[in-house]
Amino acid sequence: MNKTESEATLKRLSHYARCLRMAIANGIDIITSSSIAEPCGISPASVRKDLAAYGEFGKQGSGYNPEELLGVIERILGIISPPPVVLLGAGRLGRALLEGGIPGTKYRFLGAFDIDSTRTGELIGGFKVYHASQMSRVLDGITDFIGMICVTPGLAQQAVDLLVKDGCRAILSFNVEPLHAPPGVNIRYTDMPFEMDLLSHGLKTREGANEYD
Amino acid sequence: MNKTESEATLKRLSHYARCLRMAIANGIDIITSSSIAEPCGISPASVRKDLAAYGEFGKQGSGYNPEELLGVIERILGIISPPPVVLLGAGRLGRALLEGGIPGTKYRFLGAFDIDSTRTGELIGGFKVYHASQMSRVLDGITDFIGMICVTPGLAQQAVDLLVKDGCRAILSFNVEPLHAPPGVNIRYTDMPFEMDLLSHGLKTREGANEYD
Repeated sequence: MNKTESEATLKRLSHYARCLRMAIANGIDIITSSSIAEPCGISPASVRKDLAAYGEFGKQGSGYNPEELLGVIERILGIISPPPVVLLGAGRLGRALLEGGIPGTKYRFLGAFDIDSTRTGELIGGFKVYHASQMSRVLDGITDFIGMICVTPGLAQQAVDLLVKDGCRAILSFNVEPLHAPPGVNIRYTDMPFEMDLLSHGLKTREGANEYD
Repeated sequence: MNKTESEATLKRLSHYARCLRMAIANGIDIITSSSIAEPCGISPASVRKDLAAYGEFGKQGSGYNPEELLGVIERILGIISPPPVVLLGAGRLGRALLEGGIPGTKYRFLGAFDIDSTRTGELIGGFKVYHASQMSRVLDGITDFIGMICVTPGLAQQAVDLLVKDGCRAILSFNVEPLHAPPGVNIRYTDMPFEMDLLSHGLKTREGANEYD
């Protein structure tokens, strides 16, 4: 519950949360550190160390209650009630995201926006696509949300500016161009071309290492 | 041309390459380190340092030839002739990827595979979807390719095993479950749920920092 969690710690906690949700969905009521560790590709000792840092869970050798543990982890991550997600760009990728949702998580879309007026009014995955100019009106004062950007290359900064104007402070971009926002606004990227360049470089240099090893 | 490039260096080179391709597309024939640096969100001094490490380009104060520089960077990254991409999983996301391609890069799909026989034979974005059991026959001995996985949650390891059996050594997963592969096989992830958890945590703790700052 403080600011000291490193990105690496948060990444492990995020993995544990997904693993625990899967266990709960499968009706498992006691889970050991090994069975959390294995699907996460992390050592059981690291799992125990991470969990011990947030208090006492379970008894020596008897495992954890997955629901209780998930609650604690979700509280640390700030996703007990996860922020809603607002999509900008209802093109091919945006459409796939709206229709498929964000599997394995509690994140839900709140709405979708596009600057292309031929798309507005359309219903995709149960969500109406609004014109970007309607964002303030539709959001109606909500500011704790994640803005998800998948717009035409070259238009991403415009999308960021629009989100920031409406109070957004958390942005996930599927566009690759580097984006600028005022202090206090967090921007993250899902940088597919970079991952592919890294894989190509590995093929060329005959390196091979699993990211989780 | 050696194994010493760090992931951070490769990330910067990957950004420079995208920036140079954009400049070439816009007909620019001389580019300065500042105009490479700015859209990449990196300092001009870092750009000059990176480029100096790979030889002498341009003259003091007169900028770089973008085509020449791109050639050098693509050679370092191993993407002069980028490996073809093989898609596994022609669901919503796979469909969006096949139709949209991988913008801003030279990566091209070679083909698409699915274990769902109701999808095989379909034509998506100009690519025929083959049944996964046909992979060996369709690839016909090609092993230098990137396997891109976007399959139903729970089936990703099966997809990896299939790719590895056909000689694949470079895998990009849109599935979030951690995957295992033999040594020499490189697996990377585009971990959207983790990025969202990180943004949520930032909203809760009121942190804000741009990844490129």
